[in-house]
Amino acid sequence: MANFEYEIMEELGVLSTNQSGWTKELNLISWNGRPPKFDIRDWSPDHEKMGKGLTFSNEELKELQEIINEIDL
Amino acid sequence: MANFEYEIMEELGVLSTNQSGWTKELNLISWNGRPPKFDIRDWSPDHEKMGKGLTFSNEELKELQEIINEIDL
Repeated sequence: MANFEYEIMEELGVLSTNQSGWTKELNLISWNGRPPKFDIRDWSPDHEKMGKGLTFSNEELKELQEIINEIDL
Repeated sequence: MANFEYEIMEELGVLSTNQSGWTKELNLISWNGRPPKFDIRDWSPDHEKMGKGLTFSNEELKELQEIINEIDL
């Protein structure tokens, strides 16, 4: 896996936890010293390992918020 | 890439469009005939190609909604 640095600037919330204790989380993360972005991905219980995820800009998260708020969940 | 089938049951919204026309979208997708799940991923302009993405259960999307609604975007 490529070498990279990350820093979790803010832990915003846990969406779910699976049987092996991995959590799907929304965090604010700075990757390789760049400005932090919103980030949804899976994390191991000890937070040492991470799964594939997606990053979101402010505008994207705002748009996602509007779309989700229209859905009858 | 592994062989798989998918059906977009409902197009829920576009979060963003990048310079090459790819769109980051929230859709309801059935993968390999399984019950549909919420799905966020990038799509090519002609919707023929897709990027890596994440799937969400109803509960996860509800939890994400609550978390995002607490953030001052």
